[in-house]
Amino acid sequence: MSTVSNAKERLANFVREVWSEGNVEAADEYIAPRYKVLHDPGDRWEGRERDLAGYKERVSALRAAFPDQCFDIQGLFADGDAVVATWFRSATHKGDIPGFPATGKVIRMSGATAYYFEGDRLAAHWQITDRLGVYQRLQAAKKRDLICATQAALHPAWHCTGRAAGACG
Amino acid sequence: MSTVSNAKERLANFVREVWSEGNVEAADEYIAPRYKVLHDPGDRWEGRERDLAGYKERVSALRAAFPDQCFDIQGLFADGDAVVATWFRSATHKGDIPGFPATGKVIRMSGATAYYFEGDRLAAHWQITDRLGVYQRLQAAKKRDLICATQAALHPAWHCTGRAAGACG
Repeated sequence: MSTVSNAKERLANFVREVWSEGNVEAADEYIAPRYKVLHDPGDRWEGRERDLAGYKERVSALRAAFPDQCFDIQGLFADGDAVVATWFRSATHKGDIPGFPATGKVIRMSGATAYYFEGDRLAAHWQITDRLGVYQRLQAAKKRDLICATQAALHPAWHCTGRAAGACG
Repeated sequence: MSTVSNAKERLANFVREVWSEGNVEAADEYIAPRYKVLHDPGDRWEGRERDLAGYKERVSALRAAFPDQCFDIQGLFADGDAVVATWFRSATHKGDIPGFPATGKVIRMSGATAYYFEGDRLAAHWQITDRLGVYQRLQAAKKRDLICATQAALHPAWHCTGRAAGACG
């Protein structure tokens, strides 16, 4: 990348187009021929290198249960061939994931990702996400649904109210 | 800070002296009069500003259950007044924490922290740690201890073997 501000702008555009807006094909413009997930606890591709098609498959798989997900970048830090992003993600839990059938609830999470460029292409990342926060929110949503279902069965006139929507979108 | 490399070196020294070696008083040399925990899910000081004494109290409290903890920095990224560190932590679980009496097991975790300088002093951080990974490892250790205790009760000649030590130290 020619300048630090270019690298930051390019990363922000990539996150918005590919991960928030779900334009999977836009990955063609950003991803290197080989892309490595250096570190990403809980990600099934951790430690693996993929080609562009594999990267697109990853985006589709990770967006499936949260199709309206939106990333709100908190900070961008460029140094050498890397740009680190700190972020919040807001997403409606619309698809089933292991142990958690879709709840329809807005789930917020946070994370930090160090992206590595090769020229103007992204070639790797090292990421931490607050998985426990998501797990706790999904558990709470499951519990609320159970309480709602029980209440609705006992008191047909009773209505469950959902949570307020997140900040994104 | 005068240069980017100075800021990185200073942050690495701070993490080693204060957080790995447990030299709490060394915080005098690194921490600003007011220090804010901007974001740190699960941390009881999240969103709060503390003075230097409060910061030292935080270090002591967080090291209590893991007194030999050691941070292995993976990457340092300096930009403007911030330095981001990506890291692994290795620590023996020697003290009780809620829900998990001391197991004596080495627990590894990873995280990413954006530190903000005011001059040559650290004034704030925004952090994500893989809390779910720690929770899962503690759960597994608890389960192993239960199996060990059961086996030892049934077969007095049987010995439980611990896990290999982590990379640090």
